[in-house]
Amino acid sequence: MIVVMETTATQEQIDHMTERVRKLGLKANVIVGTERTVIAAIGEKREDTKDSLASGPGVSSVMPIIAPYKMASREVRPEPTQVQVREFRAGNGICGVMAGPCSVESEEQLMSAARAVKAAGATALRGGAFKPRTSPYSFQGMKEEGLKLLAAAREETGLAVVTEIMSTDDVELVAKYADVLQIGARNMQNYRLLEAVGNVDRAVLLKRGASATMDEFLLAAEYILNEGNENVMLCERGIRTFEDHTRFTLPLASVPYLHRKTHLPVIIDPSHGTGHTYMVPDMAVAAVAAGADGLIIEVHPDPENALSDGYQSLEFNQFQATMDRCRVVAEALGRSMG
Amino acid sequence: MIVVMETTATQEQIDHMTERVRKLGLKANVIVGTERTVIAAIGEKREDTKDSLASGPGVSSVMPIIAPYKMASREVRPEPTQVQVREFRAGNGICGVMAGPCSVESEEQLMSAARAVKAAGATALRGGAFKPRTSPYSFQGMKEEGLKLLAAAREETGLAVVTEIMSTDDVELVAKYADVLQIGARNMQNYRLLEAVGNVDRAVLLKRGASATMDEFLLAAEYILNEGNENVMLCERGIRTFEDHTRFTLPLASVPYLHRKTHLPVIIDPSHGTGHTYMVPDMAVAAVAAGADGLIIEVHPDPENALSDGYQSLEFNQFQATMDRCRVVAEALGRSMG
Amino acid sequence: MIVVMETTATQEQIDHMTERVRKLGLKANVIVGTERTVIAAIGEKREDTKDSLASGPGVSSVMPIIAPYKMASREVRPEPTQVQVREFRAGNGICGVMAGPCSVESEEQLMSAARAVKAAGATALRGGAFKPRTSPYSFQGMKEEGLKLLAAAREETGLAVVTEIMSTDDVELVAKYADVLQIGARNMQNYRLLEAVGNVDRAVLLKRGASATMDEFLLAAEYILNEGNENVMLCERGIRTFEDHTRFTLPLASVPYLHRKTHLPVIIDPSHGTGHTYMVPDMAVAAVAAGADGLIIEVHPDPENALSDGYQSLEFNQFQATMDRCRVVAEALGRSMG
Amino acid sequence: MIVVMETTATQEQIDHMTERVRKLGLKANVIVGTERTVIAAIGEKREDTKDSLASGPGVSSVMPIIAPYKMASREVRPEPTQVQVREFRAGNGICGVMAGPCSVESEEQLMSAARAVKAAGATALRGGAFKPRTSPYSFQGMKEEGLKLLAAAREETGLAVVTEIMSTDDVELVAKYADVLQIGARNMQNYRLLEAVGNVDRAVLLKRGASATMDEFLLAAEYILNEGNENVMLCERGIRTFEDHTRFTLPLASVPYLHRKTHLPVIIDPSHGTGHTYMVPDMAVAAVAAGADGLIIEVHPDPENALSDGYQSLEFNQFQATMDRCRVVAEALGRSMG
Repeated sequence: MIVVMETTATQEQIDHMTERVRKLGLKANVIVGTERTVIAAIGEKREDTKDSLASGPGVSSVMPIIAPYKMASREVRPEPTQVQVREFRAGNGICGVMAGPCSVESEEQLMSAARAVKAAGATALRGGAFKPRTSPYSFQGMKEEGLKLLAAAREETGLAVVTEIMSTDDVELVAKYADVLQIGARNMQNYRLLEAVGNVDRAVLLKRGASATMDEFLLAAEYILNEGNENVMLCERGIRTFEDHTRFTLPLASVPYLHRKTHLPVIIDPSHGTGHTYMVPDMAVAAVAAGADGLIIEVHPDPENALSDGYQSLEFNQFQATMDRCRVVAEALGRSMG
Repeated sequence: MIVVMETTATQEQIDHMTERVRKLGLKANVIVGTERTVIAAIGEKREDTKDSLASGPGVSSVMPIIAPYKMASREVRPEPTQVQVREFRAGNGICGVMAGPCSVESEEQLMSAARAVKAAGATALRGGAFKPRTSPYSFQGMKEEGLKLLAAAREETGLAVVTEIMSTDDVELVAKYADVLQIGARNMQNYRLLEAVGNVDRAVLLKRGASATMDEFLLAAEYILNEGNENVMLCERGIRTFEDHTRFTLPLASVPYLHRKTHLPVIIDPSHGTGHTYMVPDMAVAAVAAGADGLIIEVHPDPENALSDGYQSLEFNQFQATMDRCRVVAEALGRSMG
Repeated sequence: MIVVMETTATQEQIDHMTERVRKLGLKANVIVGTERTVIAAIGEKREDTKDSLASGPGVSSVMPIIAPYKMASREVRPEPTQVQVREFRAGNGICGVMAGPCSVESEEQLMSAARAVKAAGATALRGGAFKPRTSPYSFQGMKEEGLKLLAAAREETGLAVVTEIMSTDDVELVAKYADVLQIGARNMQNYRLLEAVGNVDRAVLLKRGASATMDEFLLAAEYILNEGNENVMLCERGIRTFEDHTRFTLPLASVPYLHRKTHLPVIIDPSHGTGHTYMVPDMAVAAVAAGADGLIIEVHPDPENALSDGYQSLEFNQFQATMDRCRVVAEALGRSMG
Repeated sequence: MIVVMETTATQEQIDHMTERVRKLGLKANVIVGTERTVIAAIGEKREDTKDSLASGPGVSSVMPIIAPYKMASREVRPEPTQVQVREFRAGNGICGVMAGPCSVESEEQLMSAARAVKAAGATALRGGAFKPRTSPYSFQGMKEEGLKLLAAAREETGLAVVTEIMSTDDVELVAKYADVLQIGARNMQNYRLLEAVGNVDRAVLLKRGASATMDEFLLAAEYILNEGNENVMLCERGIRTFEDHTRFTLPLASVPYLHRKTHLPVIIDPSHGTGHTYMVPDMAVAAVAAGADGLIIEVHPDPENALSDGYQSLEFNQFQATMDRCRVVAEALGRSMG
């Protein structure tokens, strides 16, 4: 950590801060510059150290040197993690595809979607049974009924089941039916929920919060890893910016960034990441080209009549065509769709 | 709702969408413009209608006309709501002040803070017992021990107690000790938690999510109001933007905006909203001038040794001076500090 | 245009606004809803109409229906424009590549870069002679000397020359040497400069401002088209967001969006769009997969000693490898690199 | 400057970078930490140094310690600068008010506005003669005719005249009529224009670009100061964020921040900063409370019929009432309106 003193800091303040660094168990290296003094604090990472030092007398700012996360870090574990659930695989050259409707609405809707995405090459079925909705007056999901339909679809197709979990109250119930527990963007910093899924024997799909920095995203993953669950996938689903022609702004540079910083697989969600059906195919293919380890795509038999997110869902034939384009790109680049 | 068709939409598509609007129970008014056709859908508000129509054939976009929230709306309840808890009041010309440490750390720390903020004119004591921390390795709060200390401080000073609640699991426990339940920015869309505090006889301080739109913010309040709890205060605590010289960007225009749209009191948090001790006084005074119904300010006996947020906490004398400035401004404008 | 009245608007206000719409030469269609009245204003597009109506009495908001640009619009010209300059082509299935150093620094530097990018498959050479620099103390470019070097490099390699123009004062001079005039992001709304390049017989590469909306971007292009210059290319180079792990956030969804709205070719700049050498190859390939009509990439013989932007420049072998990957992806998708 | 090496950096890379730092004329202080090595580069500020070092082998990042601007810095000039033009004063406890219409539209419009704002206590008259408009089809201003009307209004009222300058071509012309040259947000990084106004004997009102960081803003001021013009005022007029209920997000924390970093006066523009007439008074008063050195406010005799920005303009009586509120707040805080 580098403690940057104000240009006007007194020697007394510099001495005070040097002493404080030492009391935190760190080695203090005082560097007198031409305009100001900085103190390099050397030692093991201390989470609360930065905030503490930043309020000291004569301190201008404190700059951390070391990433605040550990277990998620590539430095700790250089080899990429591949998450495997049934036939679904993500990571280390394999790009796995989760697809299906935003919400589970009926047996017929789900089964037809499951068959269609399986036929097109997806290896996991997505579908919401508990739906976090911005408005209390919107459809809130079929709940356990929906989970049962998902399990039935898995029974028939062999697809792994991915579904969102909204509350610690539901962990046991959802884990009974699902293979992959999805933490939604709005819950990325719901720490109790992160701890709860960290203690279950299920893979986790952690979505990035709409305004989360990468450090916050990786620290959220760290909450899960820290409880002992190593099957964590990171999902970039778009961030909130000033752009209003898309629902969110989808930054594909998250793929190379995360590949450099973490061993965890990186999944891209072009459906939420754009909010428009017509953009989904191009962004799915671009994600594969950028090196994504997986995709999660909304597919619906009849988007116009979907109870949620119809405007960003693909029809079956659109999904099939998208998968075909993804496959040729993956193969051209020496990777494969899983 | 206005359904805007593409310029290339066919008559068949226009007829199809007109029919769909009618099937949703709305009256359809087709307007043929010089370049394109729009369909005005008239009738009661329907939450899921917009999404559904947006995916129709030949549809360019759907523009809602009516605010998606009801109970929070000023149109439904034109008179401002004043929240009153013990001697704390916020709303309708009174600006109430909640102050105290970020985290409850010890009896001595809390008691001295409680006495100091009381002496300076605050009517509520803030203090975190359950702390949501970005890192799993940071101090997570004193939990029930902290709640007991808060209750003891109330006993002595008469200050109302405000503390954060992080999980549905803790509602009963926290409600036992606290007067005001705070929902943190990271939980603004934790809908289960919103419903839970909507069913408790405690006032709620709902913080705006760092990237929440105003509609999302008011819909989160709507979740609480919809369960029957009318004592909701809205807290602007800053949004995430590209600015990096402040921790968040604090948009005080939220005050006039919310005053126009909702009857609920608007509280400003200049501590999180800036992230720098030296900015807090100016922004607190500016908030009062902008018409805020309350302030929540971090105050610590020894910021340099605080376990969290020391860099944005005021010392006692700084808080006293800030309160003095707020008071003269409030009085100059014909309002009063509560 | 839809004029949405307040729920509290009086009949007098509604009549007043209806009359105002008619005075603007538009047909007014008054729609009485269950909660409020809206007035649909029908007729030719009027630029200043929206602002004018928005300040009327009892008006809640005004929603435009029609895109504010005309000549850039796909509705006016459905066929994609292909820009061709010497052997460089962009648009309609061809992805042209402009590459070279950020700044022209010396004959040796530029010549070696020109030869290397040509060998790797680029058809245009980029290089800055007039450099807009954030600080007045930074290197400001070689000016005319640099332009001469660019022309010499074209002479030898046949590459088209792309260079930035910063001021109306320089139009004649730069046009004498360059094939493509680049308008930088900071000048996207320098309207005098847009008009000036609109009157020169040179293609224009218009970069998106770091916080420009798509309407603003297309209106900037409209300024150029409106002067009679049809050879305009739109360049997405990243937007400013809260993300701090990249220099800018590069939204590739701009490609499908712009392809839907305009006939102009869309170029992607993965160098500025990421700000990190290691991200450039993945994002270049992703841009091709997303359907970009061109790429502009910083390439330098010795990035470590570059006078500007070394941290985001590719070395020759990195550029060659990137081009190889772009080519296989373009071909797999039935397009070609130009 | 702190050069942070990768954890995987080799000794050879560390030695290489140490040598590079020395070649730049800086002293290199190598600090070996528990996880990685950092090199503190000590010496005079070098503008291009950071970029250069950032691309070195084994370098993770480079963190600057010193502000990149000099003449604008409070460290160089600790006393606040007060800009005085005729009776207008801004800075050092005086909050000066510039008010008037967005565009000069006619003699009658301008004269009535000039008289009204003078009567209410403004000391400068704003009015646009050259208008930068997003669309080429919008009203572009009365040009020299407008400048003459401004000069005539000054003649009668004694108000200082503030008007925007869009191009280096117009510097001489505008300087002939105006007292204060305004650089608009879209031209904040039009460096040629900054240099041009730096060479004229007129005060400059520099508006912050909608996505400019504070360093970029102060470096833009530095371009002007560096040419010898010391009468520079910084104007915060709102930034572009995800918020869509205001035209821009107005961050009043810019006032304490800039007061800490620079000696230049800070002006707030609540008109553009909100984009809604009804928000302007509250934000004007809040700006005064936050310590602003000046305000610039749009006032129009008939906002509904304004040729531009009517939706954010105040009527005369609204402006008068706003000034009255500003005055009581300024006086309550021991400052005065100029």
